[in-house]
Amino acid sequence: MIDTAISHIEDYVFNPRSVAVIGASSDSQKEMSGGWVGRLIQFGYKGNIYPINPNAENILGLKAYPSIESVAGSIDYAIVAVPARAVPGVVEESVKKGVKVIHVYTAGFSETGRETGGRLQAKLEELIHASTSRLIGPNCMGVYCPKSGLTFDPRFSQEHGSIGFLSQTGVGGRRLIYLANQRGLRFSKAISYGNAVDLDGPDFLDYFVADTDTNFILIYVEGVRRGRAFFQALRQCTKTKPVVMLKGGLSESGAGAAVSHTASLAGSQQVWQTLFKQTGIIHVESLEEAVEQMVALVNLPPVRGRRVGLVGRGGGIGVLATDMCEAQGLSVPQFSAETREKLSEITPAEAGSSVRNPVEIGLGKRGLSEHYTEGLNIVASDPQIDVVITFLNPADYLHYGIGDWFDQVSRELIEVGKTLPKPFVVTFLQGRDPTIFESIIQIQDRCQEAGIACFSGLDVAIKAVGKLIPYYKFRHTT
Amino acid sequence: MIDTAISHIEDYVFNPRSVAVIGASSDSQKEMSGGWVGRLIQFGYKGNIYPINPNAENILGLKAYPSIESVAGSIDYAIVAVPARAVPGVVEESVKKGVKVIHVYTAGFSETGRETGGRLQAKLEELIHASTSRLIGPNCMGVYCPKSGLTFDPRFSQEHGSIGFLSQTGVGGRRLIYLANQRGLRFSKAISYGNAVDLDGPDFLDYFVADTDTNFILIYVEGVRRGRAFFQALRQCTKTKPVVMLKGGLSESGAGAAVSHTASLAGSQQVWQTLFKQTGIIHVESLEEAVEQMVALVNLPPVRGRRVGLVGRGGGIGVLATDMCEAQGLSVPQFSAETREKLSEITPAEAGSSVRNPVEIGLGKRGLSEHYTEGLNIVASDPQIDVVITFLNPADYLHYGIGDWFDQVSRELIEVGKTLPKPFVVTFLQGRDPTIFESIIQIQDRCQEAGIACFSGLDVAIKAVGKLIPYYKFRHTT
Repeated sequence: MIDTAISHIEDYVFNPRSVAVIGASSDSQKEMSGGWVGRLIQFGYKGNIYPINPNAENILGLKAYPSIESVAGSIDYAIVAVPARAVPGVVEESVKKGVKVIHVYTAGFSETGRETGGRLQAKLEELIHASTSRLIGPNCMGVYCPKSGLTFDPRFSQEHGSIGFLSQTGVGGRRLIYLANQRGLRFSKAISYGNAVDLDGPDFLDYFVADTDTNFILIYVEGVRRGRAFFQALRQCTKTKPVVMLKGGLSESGAGAAVSHTASLAGSQQVWQTLFKQTGIIHVESLEEAVEQMVALVNLPPVRGRRVGLVGRGGGIGVLATDMCEAQGLSVPQFSAETREKLSEITPAEAGSSVRNPVEIGLGKRGLSEHYTEGLNIVASDPQIDVVITFLNPADYLHYGIGDWFDQVSRELIEVGKTLPKPFVVTFLQGRDPTIFESIIQIQDRCQEAGIACFSGLDVAIKAVGKLIPYYKFRHTT
Repeated sequence: MIDTAISHIEDYVFNPRSVAVIGASSDSQKEMSGGWVGRLIQFGYKGNIYPINPNAENILGLKAYPSIESVAGSIDYAIVAVPARAVPGVVEESVKKGVKVIHVYTAGFSETGRETGGRLQAKLEELIHASTSRLIGPNCMGVYCPKSGLTFDPRFSQEHGSIGFLSQTGVGGRRLIYLANQRGLRFSKAISYGNAVDLDGPDFLDYFVADTDTNFILIYVEGVRRGRAFFQALRQCTKTKPVVMLKGGLSESGAGAAVSHTASLAGSQQVWQTLFKQTGIIHVESLEEAVEQMVALVNLPPVRGRRVGLVGRGGGIGVLATDMCEAQGLSVPQFSAETREKLSEITPAEAGSSVRNPVEIGLGKRGLSEHYTEGLNIVASDPQIDVVITFLNPADYLHYGIGDWFDQVSRELIEVGKTLPKPFVVTFLQGRDPTIFESIIQIQDRCQEAGIACFSGLDVAIKAVGKLIPYYKFRHTT
């Protein structure tokens, strides 16, 4: 383990044996629907929970304590959810009690842009730097760690995965986790770190670099305070682990909007673009794109080059797919003579069919033909091809019974995906049919479970693959 | 009516009083499922249909004729669906009979790249140029005109609208019409013109410029033969009617793929990009984008500038929405002092809310508040705002009963959209919930019927609006 700010206190940040909730509500319904004790209980946190409230005996079946010092045992982690003006006092008590990590959920500090908030934050800073405790926040959601059961939302998945997620904002970060969970993505750890008077983005990034549970890093920031430290941490990350970054406030007006949202300096677009390029960071522009990019990363082996073998419909849609690939920095080269020869053995010389790239193989009227898998293997074996993208249009099969078609197709895709010698990407054309929409969702879930990258929309798939190329090239050359 | 190639024969091309189908099948089932007589009957063509087949007495209840010359009456329009080698003979007979317009559906001419095909096409060309008949094709689907009942697919909408569609390819063009119809878009006329030995793209474009039924022009081409004529026709179009163009084969590899698809010269990317810029053509890159762009065009009044008022969520999503706007050439400026003052009267000063642009107004927990409409009007009345985009996230309301929410929201949006003093765009964040997907489809249909531009996805809406700006600027300055 590399020596980082968190490596010494890792167990307290992500795997605390006990959590005190300062400011737990005596109203059970309120605490269960939005309180921190309620969240931990619902999510199944296994350690000790100490609700702190001077006016309660008992909160959600747990003994309540009037103050943090009245708790007999030691406390690894405290969540502070009291009004802002009361936070410094509570933090002081926590420090005195020897709490290892203090998460200040409360907002109303420097992000308000008001003097009172600034003074309160300065006080916090002073307290924490004079102590051996560490602080997350204020104005943030804190930690989500499925392994230990710590969470800021009980609806998050309890399964753990390999994505480490660093989020400046709470609400946006939460929404991103929802969307990712729905898509079958799982996290090792997630942190919303807010105003960061103590533990900051770079500390968590350093930790992710070293964390053996984390293979992929997802970041959502609007701005950074300690620019140099942040950039250096990012450089370390991308050397060993792919980093996907959603950067809010990249444009001029967006930066203005960010100031009023997270009170952080968004930085000029040029600085960020240079950073993305220099460090191989994969830059995405929406929550939805971030999720699809993670699906590509998590499911695909390293993509060694930009040459795509397209297997789907030829004709007009093949031409447009080729254009999209080139627009995303990919190429759709000619197949080798050997590949073409092999393909012509399984592709009947009908009007419209060709053994060019993009190639149409075995898309029978009622499903995928026996030659489909063979064709995919031929294309994937071509030394001039780095990645295979297959696209299918469910609407073509709607009148043959879409359920059966999807069943057959998902089985075959998962089967072939297991053995294909190149990165393999599946995408479905979507349209407006609710039945098709629902079927694609189901097939995506099955593929995700089987480790196959499966998308909805040609553009989505091609964009996600296109953005992998510069990263793996960066990794290869550094 | 301007004097164009088609203005003299317009009634024969789009509104023929009689259609002969040469090569109609004597097999009723076959003719009904894919034959031209079947198509016309199913679509409800009102004129006389003359099936031509020497081996049939009767086709689908209509008297069949052994040859075109055996038809007693005059024939305005003939559809030729016989094998390629028989086409020149049939065209010769049709010319002799005095058929006004001959549509050659049959493929197997120059597009094959083979000598036989080339010779057959040269023969056709010779025949038609020596005659007073005009020819559409070969290798194309011909004409769709809801008003007259002429169609190449009986599943197309029978309602007519204001979009004129010119498509080089048959299959891609057909798919585009399906997608557009599903989205509630309606066409005045559509033409798939294929190899164009006689009537060509520029002829149809000249016609669309003059056609009073056509207000918007949609084009799907891979390449052009008569480049100069085509470009000149496009210039004429964009002076008075917005043109959306899907250009297949724009990239280098895509151009290669196009050669094997439509045997036409795709042209260099630079030439096309220059053309788009010079003529104000709205360039789109996929069938789906073409459809959404048409939705924006058909439903929005001219957008006079690039300054967007964003009404939706503030916070992180507002920052990202602002970035997306700038990436698409739009701006999200500060509101005027007056607007901010008015907004602050209806926006409670809660944490997170602000009267900045993007602004969050009246998005109550159970639906849109009473202030929502008022807020939209305040933003739309700001002289510094050219277009209002509102975005809503149905997932936020899922647990309150999504059906009721959508009902309320669609009513209010349509109501406010009728009177708002600026172009008004609605978009919903989609996600993966099938219920939400289906509800968005329904609300889009209602909006489309009411003439409100309603999209699914912030990116889709912002892209579609962004692409309108250069066109209207072009229109304004020429």
